[in-house]
Amino acid sequence: MTKPLRVALAGLGTVGGGVIRLIDANRELIARRAGRPIEVVAVSARDRAKDRGVDISRFTWVDDTAALANHAEADVVVELVGGSDGPALALARATLAAGKGFVTANKAMMAHHGLELAEAAEAKGTALKFEAAVAGGVPVIKSLREGAAANEIGRVYGILNGTCNFILSKMEAEGRGFDEVLAEAQALGYAEADPSFDIDGVDAAHKLSILASLAFGTRPAFGQVEVTGIRHVIAADIAEAAALGFRVRLVGIAEAGAHGLFQRVHPHLVPLDHPLAHVVGSTNAVVAEGNYVGRLLFQGAGAGDGPTASAVVADLIDIARGEFGPPYAMPAASLNELPVADSGERRGRAYLRFTVPDKVGVLAEIAAAMRDAGVSIESLIQRGAAEDGSVLVAIVTHEVQERAVAQALEKLRGSQSVAGQPMWMPLLGG
Amino acid sequence: MTKPLRVALAGLGTVGGGVIRLIDANRELIARRAGRPIEVVAVSARDRAKDRGVDISRFTWVDDTAALANHAEADVVVELVGGSDGPALALARATLAAGKGFVTANKAMMAHHGLELAEAAEAKGTALKFEAAVAGGVPVIKSLREGAAANEIGRVYGILNGTCNFILSKMEAEGRGFDEVLAEAQALGYAEADPSFDIDGVDAAHKLSILASLAFGTRPAFGQVEVTGIRHVIAADIAEAAALGFRVRLVGIAEAGAHGLFQRVHPHLVPLDHPLAHVVGSTNAVVAEGNYVGRLLFQGAGAGDGPTASAVVADLIDIARGEFGPPYAMPAASLNELPVADSGERRGRAYLRFTVPDKVGVLAEIAAAMRDAGVSIESLIQRGAAEDGSVLVAIVTHEVQERAVAQALEKLRGSQSVAGQPMWMPLLGG
Repeated sequence: MTKPLRVALAGLGTVGGGVIRLIDANRELIARRAGRPIEVVAVSARDRAKDRGVDISRFTWVDDTAALANHAEADVVVELVGGSDGPALALARATLAAGKGFVTANKAMMAHHGLELAEAAEAKGTALKFEAAVAGGVPVIKSLREGAAANEIGRVYGILNGTCNFILSKMEAEGRGFDEVLAEAQALGYAEADPSFDIDGVDAAHKLSILASLAFGTRPAFGQVEVTGIRHVIAADIAEAAALGFRVRLVGIAEAGAHGLFQRVHPHLVPLDHPLAHVVGSTNAVVAEGNYVGRLLFQGAGAGDGPTASAVVADLIDIARGEFGPPYAMPAASLNELPVADSGERRGRAYLRFTVPDKVGVLAEIAAAMRDAGVSIESLIQRGAAEDGSVLVAIVTHEVQERAVAQALEKLRGSQSVAGQPMWMPLLGG
Repeated sequence: MTKPLRVALAGLGTVGGGVIRLIDANRELIARRAGRPIEVVAVSARDRAKDRGVDISRFTWVDDTAALANHAEADVVVELVGGSDGPALALARATLAAGKGFVTANKAMMAHHGLELAEAAEAKGTALKFEAAVAGGVPVIKSLREGAAANEIGRVYGILNGTCNFILSKMEAEGRGFDEVLAEAQALGYAEADPSFDIDGVDAAHKLSILASLAFGTRPAFGQVEVTGIRHVIAADIAEAAALGFRVRLVGIAEAGAHGLFQRVHPHLVPLDHPLAHVVGSTNAVVAEGNYVGRLLFQGAGAGDGPTASAVVADLIDIARGEFGPPYAMPAASLNELPVADSGERRGRAYLRFTVPDKVGVLAEIAAAMRDAGVSIESLIQRGAAEDGSVLVAIVTHEVQERAVAQALEKLRGSQSVAGQPMWMPLLGG
């Protein structure tokens, strides 16, 4: 057995504790698979005294997290501090500059600074690995970087945020409203006290931009992701979708082609015969479509200390084996930069939902706006008056350009007939 | 750009043609991802003149397939000849002995001779890769070998044969019988003229033994797999299963633990809330359960020239990058040998189906045999007489040892009441 891979660990939250527990529990197996032992040698976190349920007294404690980068005993630094900038980024830069390997679960940092960090890693011939940044323990980054590497990938999409999927599938199962289910998810620890990063789609957008880069060989372009979360999905949307044979899922989707690079996170209607319709709870799932392999699906726990630690240690095993190359599969300098695709040009079916007063002529106005914009209606459900006298109109369109749907909605925006913001959701196509 | 990885290709059937087409179509992308071009330099097959839809005149033709092993221009040999022994095995041995990399889609050979070949590859420090041997283009071998490498895996299972899944899901969708659907599958090219390797479960058993070895770090033990195919599944089994909330799938399942190594291919009842219940057509899906990552699911096309070529070329890309290690993740010499688990000890629910004459006392005899063996019945459906006067009795048991069910069936085997062989299928448990 050759000498161990020595790890300095920054951040001792639930995932950091998970990494230590995993390495303890599976020590021998990891050494067999990695060809040598993996050992934590130094740790750093905000509070040394906090009880984490693991014995950290056997590791060198380092007060200044940034100092881990130059810790003499460490071959590689694992960053579990979080945050797109600040201490995490400083540690990443310093570690790579020191020519050490760097493993992170930090999707925000990779989405914002991945390209710079990849260039730094390549300059030193060292490892930058981030399997845990997307879909928790599911090895989807490896699968895109290596498993599907022979393919031109045209589309990658999936359920990338476990909190949103937990909320949507609970709303679906119990017929309850968003606010109520969110409160319960917070109480159960499935949603943060400030849930906006999750429920407004930002976290999914971070992950999507990372997947897109790996799938298409393009520069990470987080700033170009169109992002809409699940805050405005109401119980009736889920019920009407179900009546029409769909489930509502927050889907991040990216496509590359002649039209440029398209990236969007948005609630979608997913047909029941699509595997994503059957992904419930906090599970994540990613689909990649390659020109030779066809449709691949990867699914598993998207968060949690065990799954995330599994991905972090898989990265460490790759490093221990010496099996790593450029972080984005190809040199960062060779990643393409595609123009942003015009989403108005996209064709597809769509779901529209209006809340309207129960009076004569409203439906005619909606139908006329659709007709004038060239939007053909496939099905329409109108449900009787609620307590406040309002009526719900849910529409599924035939395939149409998104631009046309936007025009119809624009026309109705000024109308007295439509109360509040109409809901628009694309249907996930084959 | 460094020098190309030069490939000698043995076998020019549909997959061989697919590999050539893929390398042609995605040449530039592959070179970017692999860090260098991948080029076919020499080919060998039975019939030089056959039209394969690809131009092979640009490659060196080698009459004697075995000679590819020592072809001066080739760095790596791709074997797509098939068959567990014979020319494929001779080529594998000679190639590895020559210290060249070897890539194969040959599950039969890997199931029978994988250990020997891995030892040969390790002795020369060369690559032996076989991603295409299991689940076509789905990178499940990489995911077990690397992506889930940090985990102790307790169980791996899945739908490993596309032909069987095509037949079962078609029987399910159309309510038709096995023979009729098999004939149609043969006409459509989804089943071979001699379909026994597929429908009798042998192909799935080959793949299962490969997965088990990677998942558990155990020596491949194909000979120990309990194998039952789908020949005896009748339309009524599928209908009764559906009435009870299940679908019938041919599942290969392997478990390792204190009880030893358990490996079985058998039709199972899969509950509708399990992702495998939604795998239809010729798709493959593999589930691995790790002690930290939880349940991972990998799904995609299990066969076909495109998906299989995708896996073959992914292996070539790993070799071009120099990212390969011991074929089974750890040195072959360190793989464990576990005793065969006693399947009689397994506990679970089971489906039983009897065809019986429509006369007094038959049900009592079946019920008594169950009671005497300690098998508790959860639900029972008896369907009215068929044309021949026979009646179908379908039972789902409560959780029970398999040994007890076997005892009940043994007792009924001599009975005048039960016509033909009863059907037994385990229920796939959480």
